Amino acid sequence: MIVYGRNAVREAQRGRRRVLRLWEQGDVPDDELERLCGSPDHQGLVAEVERFPYVDAAELLTPEDALVVALDQIQDPQNLGAICRSAEGAGASGIVLPERGGVEVTPAVCRASAGAVEHLAIARVRNLADFLAAAKHDGAWVYGAESGAEVPYWKPDYRGRVVIVLGSEGKGLRPRVRAGCDQLVGLPLRGRLESLNVAATAAVLLYEIVRQRTEP
Amino acid sequence: MIVYGRNAVREAQRGRRRVLRLWEQGDVPDDELERLCGSPDHQGLVAEVERFPYVDAAELLTPEDALVVALDQIQDPQNLGAICRSAEGAGASGIVLPERGGVEVTPAVCRASAGAVEHLAIARVRNLADFLAAAKHDGAWVYGAESGAEVPYWKPDYRGRVVIVLGSEGKGLRPRVRAGCDQLVGLPLRGRLESLNVAATAAVLLYEIVRQRTEP
Repeated sequence: MIVYGRNAVREAQRGRRRVLRLWEQGDVPDDELERLCGSPDHQGLVAEVERFPYVDAAELLTPEDALVVALDQIQDPQNLGAICRSAEGAGASGIVLPERGGVEVTPAVCRASAGAVEHLAIARVRNLADFLAAAKHDGAWVYGAESGAEVPYWKPDYRGRVVIVLGSEGKGLRPRVRAGCDQLVGLPLRGRLESLNVAATAAVLLYEIVRQRTEP
Repeated sequence: MIVYGRNAVREAQRGRRRVLRLWEQGDVPDDELERLCGSPDHQGLVAEVERFPYVDAAELLTPEDALVVALDQIQDPQNLGAICRSAEGAGASGIVLPERGGVEVTPAVCRASAGAVEHLAIARVRNLADFLAAAKHDGAWVYGAESGAEVPYWKPDYRGRVVIVLGSEGKGLRPRVRAGCDQLVGLPLRGRLESLNVAATAAVLLYEIVRQRTEP
């Protein structure tokens, strides 16, 4: 797999994957770098690395204070990358993605995450609703983020095992995933728009949990 | 000025600017739409609108609970757009940008904001440090966000007039801007990366202020 951009390549070198090959500006023609990445956004640094080491979803829930972010069919690599970066910063246990219907860890996601994916546990599951059911069985509380939810996101007590679930851009949570949440929470909207960006929502929820867990 | 994308065009139609012309998919050849936007990301909807109505920065501080976001040379239109969307959602009084050295409200910013810029007061100032000094003179408290700041962002009491200041991607706050802050606050980092994305940081700070002001 190709990784490109200064941060993404540096973190790949510090991370779990073996770096198989490295190209810097000048090693090959610029248009060849761009062709390798499928993007002009490589900042003169491109690496070939092993494929992304997805983990087993069940592992993520082992810690008693596990904090897992489940993403229901996120479409935009920028959003997935941004969520990974915030999750890594907040010390989340990891991310769960459905195998189908959404973006996975692509070169563009690595770039958008500033390399955070190299230090983050990411799992893929066949069925996200089934994962949520299993997580509840393991004692986790499952909070779904939804624009317009009555309960503000700061109301729940986020101690213990927690899964936060975020829906896709535009469509939100699918019915079975929504039904699998213990509680729906929302960010109050004080303007005229009807929703926030999913990566912004993720950052706010993650850091509210950091805040509560730091100063109970 | 050109505005493109479904949300950006819809909000322009609901907002303050006159829409001078509208193109939909099929009205003109696709490559002509793309040429108008400078981007393939138009979703088949493009409008020509009046130029962006920047406001006077001093106005933003009039309310007793003014909440202003000052951005020190943000470079990436995606980040500026995302910050505008979160600021609009959080009910911020507005955004202050320096006239030089950073991105301003371009078509890509309108698109990335999902049209939030149409409902948000945005000002440009010649000198951001001078604006912060004036804001303090008007009774505002000025909080600078900095990775690694000792004070967690949830510590201050954000009642009254507040300005939050965010630095550029990579470089952070310039020395005079940093020196113009009453207090530096940070988001704790629990992973291996040394910073968060500036738009994620903005969302977390804005919603902590919403939280505190909703449930004091």
